[in-house]
Amino acid sequence: MLRNLCFAGRGTMIKTVLLDLSGVVYQDNELLSGALDAIAVLRQNGLHLKFVTNTTRSTKHETLQNLKSLGLQCEASELFMPAQAACTWLELNHCSPHLLVHPAIESEFSSCKQDRPVAVVVGDAGEAFNYTNLNHAFRVLQNGGPLLALAKNRYFRDKDGELSLDAGPFLAALEFACGRDALVLGKPSGVFFSLALHDTGCGLDEAAMIGDDVESDVSGALEARVGVGILVRTGKYRPNDETLFQPAPTAVVDNILAAADWILQHNAVAL
Amino acid sequence: MLRNLCFAGRGTMIKTVLLDLSGVVYQDNELLSGALDAIAVLRQNGLHLKFVTNTTRSTKHETLQNLKSLGLQCEASELFMPAQAACTWLELNHCSPHLLVHPAIESEFSSCKQDRPVAVVVGDAGEAFNYTNLNHAFRVLQNGGPLLALAKNRYFRDKDGELSLDAGPFLAALEFACGRDALVLGKPSGVFFSLALHDTGCGLDEAAMIGDDVESDVSGALEARVGVGILVRTGKYRPNDETLFQPAPTAVVDNILAAADWILQHNAVAL
Repeated sequence: MLRNLCFAGRGTMIKTVLLDLSGVVYQDNELLSGALDAIAVLRQNGLHLKFVTNTTRSTKHETLQNLKSLGLQCEASELFMPAQAACTWLELNHCSPHLLVHPAIESEFSSCKQDRPVAVVVGDAGEAFNYTNLNHAFRVLQNGGPLLALAKNRYFRDKDGELSLDAGPFLAALEFACGRDALVLGKPSGVFFSLALHDTGCGLDEAAMIGDDVESDVSGALEARVGVGILVRTGKYRPNDETLFQPAPTAVVDNILAAADWILQHNAVAL
Repeated sequence: MLRNLCFAGRGTMIKTVLLDLSGVVYQDNELLSGALDAIAVLRQNGLHLKFVTNTTRSTKHETLQNLKSLGLQCEASELFMPAQAACTWLELNHCSPHLLVHPAIESEFSSCKQDRPVAVVVGDAGEAFNYTNLNHAFRVLQNGGPLLALAKNRYFRDKDGELSLDAGPFLAALEFACGRDALVLGKPSGVFFSLALHDTGCGLDEAAMIGDDVESDVSGALEARVGVGILVRTGKYRPNDETLFQPAPTAVVDNILAAADWILQHNAVAL
């Protein structure tokens, strides 16, 4: 309640809005109701937008093309994904990558410098998670370099309807082998939210996150000290989700358009 | 000190001696000095012997043949290995195995019953640790059945002199994926020591363990409530090893022959 009271009065202006994609902007390859209006009104009011997704099997180019095919115009600079978070981290920390990621996104790392101390980058590599590749990564880790993860999901719903192993278990394997924890660069990692704002010149407290996943999107962002975390009742939202994790959402609203309204109203009060 | 004082007086008679193999009985394919004498004198004094080793890439038959080639006669009933521990556990717990072990030891499970609830058994499967096999094991685990491990070593020194991934990391992967801990059936697991004594009719407190690995052999056995744990200064022993883990060894002696003498002396006092 204290949090809400705080925002009811004069507060920090929101300058950047972080938006999850699946379940917030679109669902099952269709834009959700009000998504285009919400995005338009946020832009008209001078807010920076950054679409943040944990996708680790598509390139940024493919994701942009997909958004375009749905009718959403989005600049490359407005889309932020874990592979980009990893590239930014590697550049800021003067490291070169040793990749154990899905072959589809290896090209995302082509511009990384190759002559620096090596960090192992693990993504959802699928069939590339074999003994030889994992052992190679383990041997690289013995130089003491960092272990980075694009995400640490346990499993995903596979094409056959059954659950299949995601990157998390293989990351746990390497963590156990080398005795060090990975730095997770996808949501809900605090590093992800910080890196997403890296090129905006906007502080964490000047950003708002809109998501349908109370843990990964909303609590993760608030934990990372993003100023506002708004949970929408679309996508994977289920009643009472807002009670499951701390920090609790700053607000719970019906959809992305209501979230945009909430932010504009907040900024009006904060003026 | 209390422990030693206890054994200095009238105590429980030792009926079974558990002996580690590598570093205690032999080293680099040669019997260690005094090994045959120690084994002979223990047998002459009516003690049951059980050789216990964590080997997970050789069958029991191959291990027996290897001991024979070194000049050590050993009955099949005197050798206990993790695969046998797993088979005993599966039988006692009315389970059938789903194997993810080294192909060389799959035959060790041929007598297991196949029509029962399934437990996943993970050993050092080497190249068989690929995505398809691990995902298959993960899907089997979704039925809620047990996850058994022949051992949980992180890595081993490979033929090329470098460290390579052992079974432990892949076990950690499955543990993370299914959210349950594995039951480890090799040393230093308490279950291993209990199962090793299963067919002897001898209680844990009536057994003594002789080993060169203070953690895996000696502290592990004592933690499992084996009556006596003797550390020998051969094999992988390094000065002060006895101070590294709790419970501390009951005794530290030069080699297997001195350990046999210690046991016989203990039994004489306990009479």
